[in-house]
Amino acid sequence: MSAGRVTTIHDLQTPALVVDRAMLDENIATMAAALPGDRLRPHVKAHKSTALAARQSAAGHRGFTCATIREVEGMAAAGLGDDLLLANEVLDTRRLGAVVESGARVTVAVDSEETVRAAAAGGVREVLVDVNVGLPRCGCAPEQAGAIADLARSLGLEVRGVMGYEGHVMLVADVEDRRRQTAECMARLSAAHADVGGDVVSASGTGNYALNDVATEVQAGSYALMDTAYAALPDLPFGQSLAVLTRVVSRTGPVEGIPGWAVVNAGLKSLGMDHGNPDIPGGVVWFCSDEHITWQPDDWDAVRVGDLVRVLPAHVDPTVALHERMWVVDGEDVVDELPVDLRGW
Amino acid sequence: MSAGRVTTIHDLQTPALVVDRAMLDENIATMAAALPGDRLRPHVKAHKSTALAARQSAAGHRGFTCATIREVEGMAAAGLGDDLLLANEVLDTRRLGAVVESGARVTVAVDSEETVRAAAAGGVREVLVDVNVGLPRCGCAPEQAGAIADLARSLGLEVRGVMGYEGHVMLVADVEDRRRQTAECMARLSAAHADVGGDVVSASGTGNYALNDVATEVQAGSYALMDTAYAALPDLPFGQSLAVLTRVVSRTGPVEGIPGWAVVNAGLKSLGMDHGNPDIPGGVVWFCSDEHITWQPDDWDAVRVGDLVRVLPAHVDPTVALHERMWVVDGEDVVDELPVDLRGW
Repeated sequence: MSAGRVTTIHDLQTPALVVDRAMLDENIATMAAALPGDRLRPHVKAHKSTALAARQSAAGHRGFTCATIREVEGMAAAGLGDDLLLANEVLDTRRLGAVVESGARVTVAVDSEETVRAAAAGGVREVLVDVNVGLPRCGCAPEQAGAIADLARSLGLEVRGVMGYEGHVMLVADVEDRRRQTAECMARLSAAHADVGGDVVSASGTGNYALNDVATEVQAGSYALMDTAYAALPDLPFGQSLAVLTRVVSRTGPVEGIPGWAVVNAGLKSLGMDHGNPDIPGGVVWFCSDEHITWQPDDWDAVRVGDLVRVLPAHVDPTVALHERMWVVDGEDVVDELPVDLRGW
Repeated sequence: MSAGRVTTIHDLQTPALVVDRAMLDENIATMAAALPGDRLRPHVKAHKSTALAARQSAAGHRGFTCATIREVEGMAAAGLGDDLLLANEVLDTRRLGAVVESGARVTVAVDSEETVRAAAAGGVREVLVDVNVGLPRCGCAPEQAGAIADLARSLGLEVRGVMGYEGHVMLVADVEDRRRQTAECMARLSAAHADVGGDVVSASGTGNYALNDVATEVQAGSYALMDTAYAALPDLPFGQSLAVLTRVVSRTGPVEGIPGWAVVNAGLKSLGMDHGNPDIPGGVVWFCSDEHITWQPDDWDAVRVGDLVRVLPAHVDPTVALHERMWVVDGEDVVDELPVDLRGW
């Protein structure tokens, strides 16, 4: 730990991200058993931490998925650059070329003439053709993938295969629906792969990592830390290892028919809110403000100003991006620090 | 500018916060004319930038409002510590005491025996009694305020007066409704003030800064940068000076009854999402992902991969907190940098 004086959660400046050590280890081990080695390409966007990525690497995964140029740069600088995939289209590729020059392996997604030409001009040597498999976002139509691969090869780029992200399938509640929709998406990706060639078919995430029998590698990231949205899928074997540790700063008793509430010192500045309010076990969240959550404890009388309260984020990725570090905890002991060192762009 | 080579917006790494210089200057001047000098205590939580606070100071405002201990520390370190109000309850007050020792003036909000005792123990010398004026969050009941002031004085603290934040009134659409609700909240605050004493009655924000005839000072912050939520109030004279500059990274033509769409490289990691999707003038936003916005341009044929696109945030405070800096622009020229140096806690 860089801050040697912090030894228990009571000493942490709140709000603070805390990660349960045993649950984190178990999540990583469970995934590594299901998708060992190169079958998993962990997505670092979910945790933005090279220290956490190093734990995934130690579990056997050599390749990583990134969403931003800075994530690629940071992973390479941390010695985790054996096989980095930027699973995103970028135009400003010179920084990627510099990472390649430094000795790391970088593959970038392309879905248009412009992004292919940018990859070649910037000094990137390897690409995947990004295919729209059903989510209206990036990716070319499957029938265009072959032409994009041809253009890339004509410019001297190595085309390693295809990728397609079926993000709209991740949180489908029914597992058989999720499996069927995943298969439909992968049929589109397979069709593109037949035209593109290459060894790599990269797809899927934490929600359907176990439901894809087409992809050669899975891009899951959220499984290590989890959130309430993924925890709502009953078939996933991962626990919510991440919480925002907060402190009760105010408390108001029942009045005029309104039950008693309490306020903790986390809010819109420490929680990704696109999936809605976080959960507080033992209470009901009413609403979030910039630095506050107003909530109704099940047992209001038992709550005191100064109490520590764990808040469970609804969406892990944008939550972590708001913090400088995560503290690894074992009960009340703080045992390690995971800097969130891949923020920004 | 610290990055001397950036001279136009075309050179910026996207996504990037950009602030229109003329509109920022006009917003600051308009507010300073309406609430000159100490009538306004600008809230730094909306921009988290000492450089922007310095512009507000230059417009005549000596005192500032903060939401976190780090904001207080950063403002004092930047030489803007003439009169800092931490308008929030905190238990860990030793860092605030250290700021007082360094020569800055720090006043902290209290609403309970615990927070009063923490202020005294931590070395803070001045407090405001925080009163619940209608928003179920922090603040004591008006009838408790006198007892809290008595306790504070008995511990040697200077009680400067009262504060109360009527956050639920800020975005009330009808201006007369907003005025009436503001008056109701201020009646509660006045009742508390009668029991507490002191010179300060601190309240209100950008939505009702002009509608409060009770407060001695207004805590507005959003007025300088603005967002789509505040811009929807037709009576406010402030312009949206802040945008997220993005680049089109992907573009898909009309197919199977779905109109053509484009994707820009900003999303949940660069935009506060609690107020919903951002706006893109000249198009309709469909949805946001971690690093993407999928949107439908009004004129799809005119959009090209690589184009720069300005995205207007729905909520300024949590948007700024996701960025390291804002670039001040004059048309396409980048003329200054405002580091977002007050992030974290």
